[in-house]
Amino acid sequence: MSVKSSTSLGQALLAPRAIALVGASGDERKNTARPLRFMRKHRYAGRIHPINAGRTEIMGERAYPSLAALPEPVDHVFVMIPGEQVLSVLEQCPAAGARVLTVYSDGFAEAGPEGMARQQALVARARELGVRILGPNSIGSANLHTGGVISVNAAFEADDLVAGDISMVSQSGSMMGSLLSRAAARGFGFASSVSVGNESDITVGEVVDALVDDPNTRVILLFLETLREAPVLAAALARARQAGKPVVAYKLGRSEQGDALAQSHTGAMAGNDAAVDAFFRAHGVLRVQQLETLFEIVPLAARYGDARSRDQAPRVAVITTTGGGAATVVDNLGTRGLVAAAPPPAFVEHMAARGLRIRETPVIDLTLAATPAQYKDLLEQLLLADWCDAVLSVIGSSAQFHPDFAVNPLVQADKPDDKPMAAFLAPEAPASLALLRKHGIAAFRTPESCADALAVLFQRKPAPVPPRAALPWPPEIPRTGALTEHEASRVFQALGVPVAASRLVPTDDLAHGLSYPVVAKVSSRDVPHKTDAGAVRIGIADDAQLRDAVDQMLENVRVHAPAADIDGILVQAMEGRLLELILGYRLDPLVGPTVVLGAGGIAAELNPDFAIRLAPISVEEARAMIEEVRATRLVRGFRGLPRGDCEALAHAIAAFSRLGEVEGVRVAEAEINPLFVRADGVVAVDGLLRFE
Amino acid sequence: MSVKSSTSLGQALLAPRAIALVGASGDERKNTARPLRFMRKHRYAGRIHPINAGRTEIMGERAYPSLAALPEPVDHVFVMIPGEQVLSVLEQCPAAGARVLTVYSDGFAEAGPEGMARQQALVARARELGVRILGPNSIGSANLHTGGVISVNAAFEADDLVAGDISMVSQSGSMMGSLLSRAAARGFGFASSVSVGNESDITVGEVVDALVDDPNTRVILLFLETLREAPVLAAALARARQAGKPVVAYKLGRSEQGDALAQSHTGAMAGNDAAVDAFFRAHGVLRVQQLETLFEIVPLAARYGDARSRDQAPRVAVITTTGGGAATVVDNLGTRGLVAAAPPPAFVEHMAARGLRIRETPVIDLTLAATPAQYKDLLEQLLLADWCDAVLSVIGSSAQFHPDFAVNPLVQADKPDDKPMAAFLAPEAPASLALLRKHGIAAFRTPESCADALAVLFQRKPAPVPPRAALPWPPEIPRTGALTEHEASRVFQALGVPVAASRLVPTDDLAHGLSYPVVAKVSSRDVPHKTDAGAVRIGIADDAQLRDAVDQMLENVRVHAPAADIDGILVQAMEGRLLELILGYRLDPLVGPTVVLGAGGIAAELNPDFAIRLAPISVEEARAMIEEVRATRLVRGFRGLPRGDCEALAHAIAAFSRLGEVEGVRVAEAEINPLFVRADGVVAVDGLLRFE
Repeated sequence: MSVKSSTSLGQALLAPRAIALVGASGDERKNTARPLRFMRKHRYAGRIHPINAGRTEIMGERAYPSLAALPEPVDHVFVMIPGEQVLSVLEQCPAAGARVLTVYSDGFAEAGPEGMARQQALVARARELGVRILGPNSIGSANLHTGGVISVNAAFEADDLVAGDISMVSQSGSMMGSLLSRAAARGFGFASSVSVGNESDITVGEVVDALVDDPNTRVILLFLETLREAPVLAAALARARQAGKPVVAYKLGRSEQGDALAQSHTGAMAGNDAAVDAFFRAHGVLRVQQLETLFEIVPLAARYGDARSRDQAPRVAVITTTGGGAATVVDNLGTRGLVAAAPPPAFVEHMAARGLRIRETPVIDLTLAATPAQYKDLLEQLLLADWCDAVLSVIGSSAQFHPDFAVNPLVQADKPDDKPMAAFLAPEAPASLALLRKHGIAAFRTPESCADALAVLFQRKPAPVPPRAALPWPPEIPRTGALTEHEASRVFQALGVPVAASRLVPTDDLAHGLSYPVVAKVSSRDVPHKTDAGAVRIGIADDAQLRDAVDQMLENVRVHAPAADIDGILVQAMEGRLLELILGYRLDPLVGPTVVLGAGGIAAELNPDFAIRLAPISVEEARAMIEEVRATRLVRGFRGLPRGDCEALAHAIAAFSRLGEVEGVRVAEAEINPLFVRADGVVAVDGLLRFE
Repeated sequence: MSVKSSTSLGQALLAPRAIALVGASGDERKNTARPLRFMRKHRYAGRIHPINAGRTEIMGERAYPSLAALPEPVDHVFVMIPGEQVLSVLEQCPAAGARVLTVYSDGFAEAGPEGMARQQALVARARELGVRILGPNSIGSANLHTGGVISVNAAFEADDLVAGDISMVSQSGSMMGSLLSRAAARGFGFASSVSVGNESDITVGEVVDALVDDPNTRVILLFLETLREAPVLAAALARARQAGKPVVAYKLGRSEQGDALAQSHTGAMAGNDAAVDAFFRAHGVLRVQQLETLFEIVPLAARYGDARSRDQAPRVAVITTTGGGAATVVDNLGTRGLVAAAPPPAFVEHMAARGLRIRETPVIDLTLAATPAQYKDLLEQLLLADWCDAVLSVIGSSAQFHPDFAVNPLVQADKPDDKPMAAFLAPEAPASLALLRKHGIAAFRTPESCADALAVLFQRKPAPVPPRAALPWPPEIPRTGALTEHEASRVFQALGVPVAASRLVPTDDLAHGLSYPVVAKVSSRDVPHKTDAGAVRIGIADDAQLRDAVDQMLENVRVHAPAADIDGILVQAMEGRLLELILGYRLDPLVGPTVVLGAGGIAAELNPDFAIRLAPISVEEARAMIEEVRATRLVRGFRGLPRGDCEALAHAIAAFSRLGEVEGVRVAEAEINPLFVRADGVVAVDGLLRFE
C-alpha cells in the first residue's frame, strides 16, 4: 500500500527537495499564506506545491486539489487545515512519496481527551503507513541554507536572518521564532530550526539525531518544557558528543524544583527537574539559566564545549577597562561557584618583563595603562598561563565609541583551543558585539548571562560508568509488589550494601542469637509505615524486654491494621553512627533510573540537601555526590568532629545505584532510610523496595 | 578667609551657573578636553572657564592661568590635574566663589597609604574652607537638563542622550557611563548623573538628598559597591520616600554573602551584604539583582513604587500570545516567590459575558483568540480584579512585526495607579520596547529582569517601629569591655528577655536554692569560651555531683587559663526546649545596629538559616523574622510536632533588638546562644555582650 521512500528521515525533515503545502492560502494576511511567501523570500531551490481544492493557482504557483493530483513525489507535506481533516491527508502521503508530515493544525493532544484520541489514531495510522509525523501543533521547521521554510512562524518574515551553523529544536513554536529573532539581531546565523509541537511521533531526540548528521549544523540549541523519550534523546546526545557537536538547553521548570524538594522522602526529593538536570549533565548537555545565554554561549560551546571539568572551582582571569563593569560579572561568577583568580607574583613579574605593570588583584584593571598591543599580549600570556582556566575581558566605554580599538586585541590575539576566552561589554555597544560575533568570539550583553555561560561551560561532567555484567536477583526474593524490610535488605546486601545484622523470627519464638541491645520490628507486607503503626522498638536490653516489646507491638498492629499478615519479628542489631543519610533509587518518569543521596532526619525536610544522578554511577561519581550533600561535611573533618568512612559510603552508593542493572526485574523505587555512616563503614538500618 | 557662597550644595553640585575646568586641554584626543566639548554638545547655558596656565584660549573659550584670574565667581570647579596639585586649587576655591570642587584626579585613597594621607589632608582643608569635595577619583557629574556635563565620561559623547526624569548616583565612574548608554538606547531620559568617586567628603547620601530637592528628578538609581555614611543616606532616603521619589539600587556583593554566612556565630552570620539588604528594605530602597533591571524597573517604580507589600506571595495575572515566552517569566517568578495566578471561575464568567473566552490556567493564552479591543478590555478587567496584585503581558511575534498592534492595547487600557502592569517582549522588538517606553509602560527585554522587577516591587516592607523612650542600663553592670554571662543575662532580662533562673555563688559555697537538675559554669571574664575550657557541666543531679563538677571545672580552667580571674560559679536551672535558636545583635560596620535570628546547632553552620533586620524592630517585624527562619517551622505546626510559643519569641526578639536604645552605652555585639523555644515561652540559656 505504501510507496517506500528512499529519502532519509533527516533529509525529508531538514532538507526536503519537494514540499506540499496542504491548505496554503493566497490571501497574504493569512498565516497559511506564509510558508510559500517565506520560501520565496529565502530562495528555496526545491519545488513547492500548494494544495488547495478551491484554487488552481496560488501566488503564481500551480495549486492542486489533493496530494494525489501532484505531478511528482514530495519529501515533506506541511498541513494547515483543521485537525479533523488531517487523517485523510496522511492517507495520501505514501502514494505522494512523503516521508514526513508536519502538522501545524491544532485540536490534538493539547485540546483535551477527544483531541488526544485523534492524535493517537493519527500516529497509529502513520506507523502503519511508514510516515513520520512532526507535531501536531508544530509551527513547522526551517532550513536557512536551502531556504526551505516549512513554517508559519512570523519570525521568518525578518530580513536579517542569515544562514549559519546553529540549529534549534523547540517545544514551543513561538519561542523558536523569538529566539531566532534575538539571535539573528546579534548576527548569529542558523542552519535548521524545528518546532516539535506535541511530539506525537518525532521527538526532540530524533531531531537532534538528524542534526548530528546535518553537515550545516555545528551547535544544537534546545528550548524545552519537558523531556519525552529520554532514551532516544540520550542516544542522539551520545552521537552529538562523538561528532563534537555541543548541545545547549534552556529548560523551563527550575522553580518547580523548589516545590518538589519541599516534599519529604527520597522519591519526592528527586523532583523531576533535578532528575532532568542530572540527565543533562550525564549526557553533556549545557543547561543555561538565562534565556539569552542559549545563543550567546554558542561561540564558547562550539570551540571549548568539551572543556575539561574541574573538581575545584574554575578560575577565571579577568582583565578590564571598567572596574565596576568587571565587578558585576565577578559578583555573578561568585554566586555560580567560579573564582576570579588573581595573577600570582611570577606572572606579574613575567608581564613586567614584557613591559606591562599589573597587580596581584582578582581583576586586572588596565584602564589608561595599556596600549592595544599590550592588551593583546596580556590576553595571549593569560591564555597560556597555568593558573587560570578561562580568560574574561570586560570592556568599558571604548566598546561603545571605538569598536575596532576595543575589539582588535581580542580578535588578533592567538587563542589556543584549550582555554576559553569571553567578553562582556559594559556599555550599550552593538557594533562591538557584532564585530566579536563576526570573529567567533563569545561576547555577552549582560553580566548575568556572561557568568551563566562560563559556569555552564565548566560544569562538572559525571565520571563514566565502566560496563559491567548484569546482576542476578536473589532467587528467593519476590519480583512484584513491595518487599518487606527483611527482603529489601537481602537485595541491598546482594548488591554489596552493608546492612545491619538481623534475624526474622516467629512471633512465638524470639530466639535470635544477636547481642543485646537490639531493635525489634513487626515484619509485614501490610504495614509499610512501621513507625506510624507502633511496630518498631529500639534499645531493647534483654530477652524479657524483647518479649514485652513484641507483645505490645503486635497489639499495636492489631489495632492499626487488623487484617495485616505478619511474617514474624525482625530483630536487628543496634548500630551506632556519626551521621544519618537517605539513599534512594527511583525510576524517574522522565529520565528513568536515578540515585539520590540526601541528608537524613527532619532538618533535611526544612533545608533540601541532596545530590542526584542518573543510575548507575561509578564509585568516583559517588564521591562527588557525597561532596555535594552539605550534611556530609559533618563526617568529612568538620570542626574536629570524628570522620566517617566516606570511602565505604561511596562504594555503597555505587553498589545501590546498580538496582536498575539487576536482571529480570524493574524496580520503581527503593530507599535506605536511614543509612548510618560510621567511622568504620556504613550500614543500612531500614529500607524498602517497590516494583513497577 | 573664605568667601561664603549663597549657592546651595544641591545647586552647586547639580546645576551650577558657572564652572571652572582646571587642567582643560585643547587637544581633542585627551580626556581633559571632554568636559568643554560635552557641554558645547549638550548646550550648556551657563559659563565655562577653562583654567590652563599654558594657554590663553581653548576651543575658542578664553583660558585663565588660575582660579584667581577668573573674571567672575564660579559655583563649581572641576579639576583634572595630577593629584599632588589639587590642594593648591582647593585653596583658591573660596575666593573664586566655588562651593564644590569635583576631583577627577587620582592618586588618593585608591592609591595606597600616601594617597590616603593626601586625601585626608585635602578633606580636612576643604572643611576649614567650607568647600565640598566630590571625589577624588570621580569621573564627574552631568545634568542633561542644563547641559552641564562636568565629566570626562565618554558616555556623554553619545548623540542619543536625552533629558528625562531619572537621576543616577554611582560609586563606579565607568558604570555610570555604561548604564547611561544602555538606558539611553532604550529611550530613558536622564536628569542628573553623579559619580561619587572615593566619597572623601560628599557621599551617596548627600547626593540623594540633593536629588530629592531637584525638580527634574523623579526616580533615583544607585550603582553601589559599598555603603558609606549610612545615617546620612538613611535620612536622605526618608526624605525621598516623603517626596514620593523611589530609589532603586544595584549593589555588588551578593556572592560575598555566601562566604560571610559560612562562618559561624551571629556576628559573622550577619554578613555585611545581608545587613545592607536589611538597610535597603528598612529604607524602602528597591534592590535589583539583574543589572538592566536598574533602569528597566523605572516606570514601575515611578508609578507603583509604594505598592503595598503583601504577607502572602504576590499574585501576578499573566496574559500572553506566546505560551513559551510567558513560561520563561513565570518560571523566574516562581524562583522569586511570586505566583502566576489563574483567574477564578467568576472572572472567567465575567469575561465570557464580555465576549472573551479564557481558561482557568495560570497563564491566560490569547493566541489567535482575541482582537486588540478584547486584549485591552481583558487588561482593564484584570487591573480591576481583586484576585491579582499585578498584571503581566507577555507579547510574542506581533511585538516584532506589528509594534503598534502589539502595544496599543497596553497603551490604551485604563491603568489605575494601584495595580502594576508590565510587559515582557519575547522576540527582538526594539520598536515595541521604544513605544512602551514612550508611553511610560514598563517593558522588559529578558524574562529574568522582568521577574526581578516584579519581585523587587512587591518586596516586603518592614513594619515601622513605634517611637519609645530610651532604656536605662542596669546601674550595677559594667559599661566597657565584655560582660560575663551572668551580667549579660541581667541586661537581657532588663530588656524584657526571659532568662534561665541562675545564681552566682562563690566557688567554696555552692548553696544556690535552685531545684535539681542544674547546669554549672565557671564565671570569669577571662574565659569567654566556656565549653572549650571545660567550664560547663549540664545535668547535675544533686549537691555532691555539683561539688565534684565544680572542682573538676576549676581544675580545667587552671590548666586552660591559669591567670583567669574567677568570679564564682554560675548555677542555672536546666531548661527543656522544643527548638534552639541564636539571637544576635551587632553593630554592623556599614549600617549600624542589626538584629539576627538564626537556627541553632551545628546544622545551621552547614545550611545558613537566618533573618536579619536593622535594630530595633517591632514585634510585628519580629514575627516576620520568625517566619523567615526555616528551622522555626519545627515549632509552627510541622508534621504534628508540638508548637512553640512564637508570640513569646517575637516579643523576646523585639525586646532584645532594643540594645541600641539603651542610654549611655554602645554595644558592639551581643548574642543569646542558645535561646530555647518552649511550648510556654522562651528562655535565654547562655549569652555574651561586648562593648565597642
